[in-house]
Amino acid sequence: MKSYDVVIIGGGPAGVTAGISVRNTYPDKKIALIRKEKVALVPCGIPYMFGTLDKVEDNILPDAPLQKNNIDLIVDEVMDSDGNNIELKSGEMVSFNKLVLATGSQPLVLPLKGIEKKGVWVVRKDIEYLRKMKEAIENAKKIVIIGGGFIGVEIADELLKIGKDVTIIEMEESLLPAAMDKEFGDMAAEILQSEGLRILLNSRVKEIKGNESVEAVLLENGDSISADIVIVAAGYRPNVDVAKKFDLEVDEKYGIKVDEYLRTSRDNIFAVGDCARKRCSFTGKYSSIMLASTAMAQGRLAGSNLYNIKVLKVFPGTLGTFSTKIGNTAFGVSGLTEAKAKSIGIDYVVGINETVNRHPGKLPGATKIYTKLIYARYSHILLGAQVKGGESVGELINMYSVIIQNRMTDMEIDALQIGTHPLLTSSPIAYSVINATVDAILKWYNNK
Amino acid sequence: MKSYDVVIIGGGPAGVTAGISVRNTYPDKKIALIRKEKVALVPCGIPYMFGTLDKVEDNILPDAPLQKNNIDLIVDEVMDSDGNNIELKSGEMVSFNKLVLATGSQPLVLPLKGIEKKGVWVVRKDIEYLRKMKEAIENAKKIVIIGGGFIGVEIADELLKIGKDVTIIEMEESLLPAAMDKEFGDMAAEILQSEGLRILLNSRVKEIKGNESVEAVLLENGDSISADIVIVAAGYRPNVDVAKKFDLEVDEKYGIKVDEYLRTSRDNIFAVGDCARKRCSFTGKYSSIMLASTAMAQGRLAGSNLYNIKVLKVFPGTLGTFSTKIGNTAFGVSGLTEAKAKSIGIDYVVGINETVNRHPGKLPGATKIYTKLIYARYSHILLGAQVKGGESVGELINMYSVIIQNRMTDMEIDALQIGTHPLLTSSPIAYSVINATVDAILKWYNNK
Repeated sequence: MKSYDVVIIGGGPAGVTAGISVRNTYPDKKIALIRKEKVALVPCGIPYMFGTLDKVEDNILPDAPLQKNNIDLIVDEVMDSDGNNIELKSGEMVSFNKLVLATGSQPLVLPLKGIEKKGVWVVRKDIEYLRKMKEAIENAKKIVIIGGGFIGVEIADELLKIGKDVTIIEMEESLLPAAMDKEFGDMAAEILQSEGLRILLNSRVKEIKGNESVEAVLLENGDSISADIVIVAAGYRPNVDVAKKFDLEVDEKYGIKVDEYLRTSRDNIFAVGDCARKRCSFTGKYSSIMLASTAMAQGRLAGSNLYNIKVLKVFPGTLGTFSTKIGNTAFGVSGLTEAKAKSIGIDYVVGINETVNRHPGKLPGATKIYTKLIYARYSHILLGAQVKGGESVGELINMYSVIIQNRMTDMEIDALQIGTHPLLTSSPIAYSVINATVDAILKWYNNK
Repeated sequence: MKSYDVVIIGGGPAGVTAGISVRNTYPDKKIALIRKEKVALVPCGIPYMFGTLDKVEDNILPDAPLQKNNIDLIVDEVMDSDGNNIELKSGEMVSFNKLVLATGSQPLVLPLKGIEKKGVWVVRKDIEYLRKMKEAIENAKKIVIIGGGFIGVEIADELLKIGKDVTIIEMEESLLPAAMDKEFGDMAAEILQSEGLRILLNSRVKEIKGNESVEAVLLENGDSISADIVIVAAGYRPNVDVAKKFDLEVDEKYGIKVDEYLRTSRDNIFAVGDCARKRCSFTGKYSSIMLASTAMAQGRLAGSNLYNIKVLKVFPGTLGTFSTKIGNTAFGVSGLTEAKAKSIGIDYVVGINETVNRHPGKLPGATKIYTKLIYARYSHILLGAQVKGGESVGELINMYSVIIQNRMTDMEIDALQIGTHPLLTSSPIAYSVINATVDAILKWYNNK
């Protein structure tokens, strides 16, 4: 029997971050992290294993932070539990005083006829599986991706770079429908189409055809798309199997039940990241959004508060901040989209701005930035931001994330002091955050 | 006599922004902007007129925002005033109901022996002057820049790009001494030295030598640096001459006296930007910092509140947010440096982090980001941030600017939800804002 003060189960970013946070806050505790995989992966880096990165090994999540923080790594699988003891597949027993579950999520396997055929892949966070998948992709010509969310779109972009014939099938009316308003999804589609992607919107798959191996994807409208490989990128579901072994209360759809301090139904067990049930910070309703931005904030909070409440801050729910890059264009989203604001019945005002990210615009690297902001009409609070532009959108969206988390109003944002530089940002007069805000203020002021 | 509701004097970013803000808030007012220059320049773009931009005309501040906002442009010079009437050089009279002064700043001319010689230039915001200066530079070989602040450093970087032999003379112990801590100034120096710049620190100029034209710069230590051209980049002083013509109270060193709503000593006259006296938002003391970030916030506030107080927000003093790019490396600063915190007697904790701006680090474009944060030890509030890294530092520093303006504490920052993406930012585990903050928390926690 190995005995630890703190055991973390799950070796993804949420587990590692929770571990580091525990080590920082409780320097004397004995900590172990248990994970199934010999090597862990950077989850968001998986799409880039198929194109930009030379080999799958280039996307390994390094173990150095564990060693540096004196966290024992146990590569093994949890089979069962008995009180505060964990039974591992190897037969070894591990005991804990505090337990943090960070068991992540797994890809949804759609109940499609033919889904079991050779040549059908899902995007599993497993290096051996992905190594085989990369090899299969390299030998294939025609690839069909089912699902036009982030993973589907990012993989499509990569596969186009290595010269594949790629089709995306999405059941909604635009790409990235859960993440962005239609006009932004359409901008992403336009970039991908110019690279050669075939996009089938408002389309549902009926069946995957073929003998032993996949040969085509049959749509509900009767069309058949021939395919050497089919990638199912239809989303993820929280991994709650391990939680059940600890007799925790779980919600199959949304994850392990936790309170605002990430405590589960058992006193000394916490859950963080994709496996933990979370609420939308605006609506208070359960949310299926799974993001590193959420998981990291949870991991740090749970880690700091494991033995006593050090940081008097509850997890306020998922904000939904993320970014991606499609072709040479970056997209960032934080908070509510217009579609979401409408669907939950918020009275809102939209602020729009288009500008360039250099000044004067003749400077090299000048790229257009398109911004859409959603303000609450009565409280004047910023609820959401969507931005399309150059690479710095990755940090610009975090500026919005900070603004939204501080519940700043349009008037406060208009009074912000913002740094600008010819080679790095838009001009001070044209700065996007301010001008999109002023556009919203004017619409409100003029009762539009 | 031309009669206006609102007259703005000064055609730089502060004046234009004030004008747009007045138009937005008071749509029916008749507005004019008076400026001396036939064409206005992008002030921060001036260094790039000497290298990156093909011709001086590429750095013109467009008049389109004036036309679009129905602001009459009057190119003329203010000679005198009589009550609410302005007498112009052309002989024309213009009357106002409200006046906004945005007369900017002008380069300091050091009282050096030989400063009047041919071949000695200052960095004046005047297109005709700069056209001649660019021509003179193109025909010169050896150029000495007096002053290692932003303008001196940015011009040096540009002149190296066009193959000049450049020397900077700075009296302090590092470059950019007013803006950044020594280690950041040293990083900038290292980049510039690798491009071929000669940097003389702790050096004071005694005399500019030569017959009619400059031939050398003589230092106080007796060294002589030969030069075809000398550029004096020793800072700017507020332009208060026009203010005196309106009998306003002025402070020759810091600018036109204004209150928190940017009102001068005369009821219906406001002043914004470099020409207006301002305080440091931390110390409350008068500050010589002249930045677009400050000027824009002032221009918007004054413009909105011109006829009645619409935005109940006073100008809180200068935060000091700015960025620059030296070689391929960007630098950003917001708030207090360590040197400044020390000099004003704040008990502070420093948080340091170094990481890369991509994840995994094998992705193309990966650049190191070095971060230094200054936290107040007792109140836990973030006081300042300095960052060196890739191009997205231009927006990252604005995220810090928002954090500081919201007076967020280390614990609140640690709980932030931050978006990350392999191709755009550091990894969620290694994200610089969080990890530099955690470093500060640990130092505080461990009483360091």
